[in-house]
Amino acid sequence: MDTLNRVIGYFSRFPGIGRKSASRIAYWLLEADKSFIQALSEDLSEMRSRIVRCRECGNYTEAPLCSICDSPSRDRTLMCAVEHPRDVSTIEETGEFRGLYHVLHGVLSPLDGMGPEELGLGRMLARIRTFGVKEVIVAANPTLEGDSTALYIARMLAKDEVRVTRIASGLPVGGDMEYADKLSIARALKARQFLENE
Amino acid sequence: MDTLNRVIGYFSRFPGIGRKSASRIAYWLLEADKSFIQALSEDLSEMRSRIVRCRECGNYTEAPLCSICDSPSRDRTLMCAVEHPRDVSTIEETGEFRGLYHVLHGVLSPLDGMGPEELGLGRMLARIRTFGVKEVIVAANPTLEGDSTALYIARMLAKDEVRVTRIASGLPVGGDMEYADKLSIARALKARQFLENE
Repeated sequence: MDTLNRVIGYFSRFPGIGRKSASRIAYWLLEADKSFIQALSEDLSEMRSRIVRCRECGNYTEAPLCSICDSPSRDRTLMCAVEHPRDVSTIEETGEFRGLYHVLHGVLSPLDGMGPEELGLGRMLARIRTFGVKEVIVAANPTLEGDSTALYIARMLAKDEVRVTRIASGLPVGGDMEYADKLSIARALKARQFLENE
Repeated sequence: MDTLNRVIGYFSRFPGIGRKSASRIAYWLLEADKSFIQALSEDLSEMRSRIVRCRECGNYTEAPLCSICDSPSRDRTLMCAVEHPRDVSTIEETGEFRGLYHVLHGVLSPLDGMGPEELGLGRMLARIRTFGVKEVIVAANPTLEGDSTALYIARMLAKDEVRVTRIASGLPVGGDMEYADKLSIARALKARQFLENE
């Protein structure tokens, strides 16, 4: 197979990219700035060796310690557990969280061989105790596995003086009841909150 | 800026890829097969030097002559003029065309400095005469520029014994009148065809 078809094949393996988009991108690259494609291919070839897991929280970083763990201004008594490194940047973009993270790189899923040990929950417990964390927010996705992971963490910390909380799930802001699925509506009803008069 | 953010930035410049998809792809690559990303980056870094324009038709190829121009089984009396190399593979996928191509790498567009000379229409004329082409199908996109390019080619060949045709435009097959734009409906009406009884 020639180079162009191979490149189209690679792009079509990217998440969310079909054959047609892959082909459009490949042809576009052939007409794009030469320095752009050179910089891209160099960074791609280097990224896997440059980017490592933060030795503290497991987030992706190019230094031994990620910029969040390394920052003196973060609240070390608050920890947010997430499934994937990308969730860290998603939460960071909201600007609503000033604590530390712990990236699990997965969720509890016995059928996939993901137990507490594979998730490194022991290391998470050690961090919590070292920092004297007061609250752990479990921001794993609102799935069955995410929920059981949250429950497991809550039980693991039952004897420590740590509040374990779970991010709320319900209707998306700006969403419409009509398009929401039953489970989300059920959760939104169950997690309903009191409106207090000011 | 670190490698991950640079890579996300590159991907978000790809056509049809937003910031969110770019980020999803970059994180996905960090967990993808190492050999995959290595093969991808190598092909990307090589593609611009390996892939050249066919000296005959202008299509992308890795040999001096593209596989279509090089094939003895193509009908050399039929030529299809297209705007972009990607249009060649689009038409090839239909399996409906057995002639040669001529890739214009653009359309006539005086405001963008694209005149007959920039499009290499002289070279196209030479090919048509060399091969004794009987029909030129202008498959430039159904835009104002595509239409004037077709008209220009028709005039250029007025004194030759060559039929110049234009691909039909109208409603997409399987489409719905309700969702078609006015111009396409107008064209579909104008280009209406007689239904003959068998």
